[in-house]
Parts: sequence; structure tokens; C-alpha cells
Amino acid sequence: MHRVKVRVVEDALDANNTIARANRADFDRAGVRVVNLMSAPGAGKTTLLERVVGSLDGLRAGVLEGDVQGSYDADRLASLHVPVTQINTDPGFGGECHLDANMVRSALPAVSLESLDLLVIENVGNLVCPAEFRVGEDARVMVSSITEGEDQPLKYPLMFRTCELVLVNKIDLLPHLDFDLEKFLHNLDAVNPGVARMLVSARTGEGVEGWRDWLQELGARPEVPA
Amino acid sequence: MHRVKVRVVEDALDANNTIARANRADFDRAGVRVVNLMSAPGAGKTTLLERVVGSLDGLRAGVLEGDVQGSYDADRLASLHVPVTQINTDPGFGGECHLDANMVRSALPAVSLESLDLLVIENVGNLVCPAEFRVGEDARVMVSSITEGEDQPLKYPLMFRTCELVLVNKIDLLPHLDFDLEKFLHNLDAVNPGVARMLVSARTGEGVEGWRDWLQELGARPEVPA
Repeated sequence: MHRVKVRVVEDALDANNTIARANRADFDRAGVRVVNLMSAPGAGKTTLLERVVGSLDGLRAGVLEGDVQGSYDADRLASLHVPVTQINTDPGFGGECHLDANMVRSALPAVSLESLDLLVIENVGNLVCPAEFRVGEDARVMVSSITEGEDQPLKYPLMFRTCELVLVNKIDLLPHLDFDLEKFLHNLDAVNPGVARMLVSARTGEGVEGWRDWLQELGARPEVPA
Repeated sequence: MHRVKVRVVEDALDANNTIARANRADFDRAGVRVVNLMSAPGAGKTTLLERVVGSLDGLRAGVLEGDVQGSYDADRLASLHVPVTQINTDPGFGGECHLDANMVRSALPAVSLESLDLLVIENVGNLVCPAEFRVGEDARVMVSSITEGEDQPLKYPLMFRTCELVLVNKIDLLPHLDFDLEKFLHNLDAVNPGVARMLVSARTGEGVEGWRDWLQELGARPEVPA
């Protein structure tokens, strides 16, 4: 029984990867660089996007917004005059806890890829399942709020291991928490040695220029990364 | 295709509910009241348990600890001399994002139900999928950290709707956040009108006596709630 179950799951991930490659081919053809932005609920993905997405030099940026239900984040971003497309996952299974490649693909007709240089896909707030599903992205960025504690990289290793950049958010709260930053960074290096990381505060704006520059560089990149 | 998929999912939830009823029957037979404790990652479930689980009057409490990987939380609780059983979900699907009834059932041989009055099942940190899966609990408690923002009840409605008690945690950070408590409580009442809620700080201990009393009352209850 167990072996059958595993095979079905592998088939599902195979199918996901096939569709993710098709998405990626479409993105590359249109010259759009794509970021898959992930975090636990309430870690600050949307506010970190609000901080930078309107101030990218000469880059046309859009957002694909994944939520179980509602369009609270999409409405916030749309008010910045950034093109936003909403994906709601609630028709499936009382609310899917992640975006997969096919959900993203089904939204692409509503996204005008030809008019974009950079597309940020804001995933559903969850530290487990989104890490399993490639959606065709060039890079994965995760936001880890220091309010979540030092042990998150050890408890949710796949998410921390499969991203290219970790935004360590809410550092304005450092004086008010029993949070050991050195220990967190040690745990991060234990699961993803040397991964790029930035200390930021979406609330005060501290450190967000580095995040902006990172997006700027990715979006301006003419070649597909190796 | 879509209809077939839905039917399979319903079958899976049917099977889960069947096993959850079997778990519940075992709990009732042993006279153990069971809490399913849920939250986003890093919201403070373990610290809130540490605060109270050793100080329940005349109640023998145990913990079933669900994590994708590792035993960081279980080790913390075991140091309080509380019987703790670890469930790791990582053998399934690269890490299941929730506990289901069968995972709990498979752990029961390691839990000495006869020697307990109260069992707290600490679920995997996730605001979506754990809400779908009953595990045989008497009551569902969720922890919502104010660092996650006011809109969490609207964005993750099933979780907030299906719980009997909401612990609004980290209120010691209220002076340091742009968090509108009234708005959060309004959103909470919009999805689960009048649900019991307590403002607590796992860090300072503020309000945790109410949480302790709530567990005490549940654990001392001789009858199965209607």
C-alpha cells in the first residue's frame, strides 16, 4: 500500500514539474524573470513587495497573488498601480495550501507577459507544501520573520534549503524579542550553507534597498540563469 | 476530470473522519480529553504549552507533538517531565503539512492513554490543511500571533471558523507593532462570531492563567461534551 501511495505522489510531482517547465519556457520566451515568494502566514511578503515593486528603475513588474480566499493582498498591491492577478485556491480541497504549476499556468492568460520584465508570484502563506512545487520560477525567495523563532530552518528545512534568498524580516522588533540572531543564522547555514540573506524591516524600511536592488538585478538579467 | 478529483478528495476526508471517530472512541474509553492545538509556524504553541502543562491541578497531561522533522519542541516539553510522543510527518510526500487521524492513530500505541486525563496534540505549523483533518479531538484551539496581522481570520477562514478557542498571542509586542486589535477581533467575529478568545503573552506570562484554567476545566470534565 505504502509503495503505491509513494508512486502516485511522485507521479503528481512529475506532472507538476512538466507544467512548471512549460511555464518557464513561456516566461523565457516573453523575457520575463519570475520570483516565487514564500513564507509563513503573516511574515510580511506583501508589505515587502509594497516597499519595492513601484520603485524599480525601468523595469515593468507584475504580481501573481496566491491566496486561499479573498483578495486583501492583491488590493493593497493594485493600489500601487502594479498589474496584479489573483489566484484563489479555495475551489480545491476546501483551500489548497500552496500554488502549483498548473494553478499558475491557468492564470497566465490573464497575465500580460509581453508587457512585463519581472513577475513576482506571492505564494500562499505556508512553510511546508509550497517548497514541493516548482511553478516555473527563476528564483525562490523566502521571508522569515524573527518573531517565528530561531529554530524555523531546522523545523522547515525543505523551504529554507530550496531558496536563493532569505529575507529576515521584522528586525525592528529585535530589541523586544528573545531572539538570538546568531543562532538563527547558524541554523540557516546548517540547512542551506551560505545562502544569500538580508536583514530587513518591512515596517521601517530598514534594509529594503538591498531587496529592491536584488529584484532590479534579476529583472534586468537578459539571459536565463544557468 | 474535476468531478472525479473532488470525489477522491471527499473519499479521503471520509476515511479520515472514520479513523478520527475510532480515535475519539479510544480517548473516551480511556477517559482522556483531547485538544488539537494549531497555528502558523512560530506563533507560540510550544511556549504556551510549556507555560501551563506542568501546573494543572491533579490532571495527568501528555503531549503528542507533530513536526515535519526533528524533535525540537518535544525535547522542550519533555524537560518539564510531561510524557511526550513525537510524530514526524516527513516520510510522506517530503513532509506532510498537517496531522491526520491516521497519523495520530499510528502513534497511539506509544501513548499510555490509561495514565492520562488530558492529551494535547500539537499540530504542524500551518493555517490551512490542519483545519481539514479532524483527529478525534474534543476541542480545537488555535494560536494567532498578533505579529501576523489583523487580516488572518479573513485569509485563513476555515482554521478560525472550526476552533473552540483562539489564543491571541504575543500581546507584549502590542506597543511595538502597527496592529489594530479591534480590527482583528472584528475580523475574527466575522468568521466565527463570539468564539472564545484570550489575549495572552507566552513570553511574559500575561493572560496564561486563563488558558491554564480552560485546559483544567476541559481535562476535568467527566462527560463527553455534547
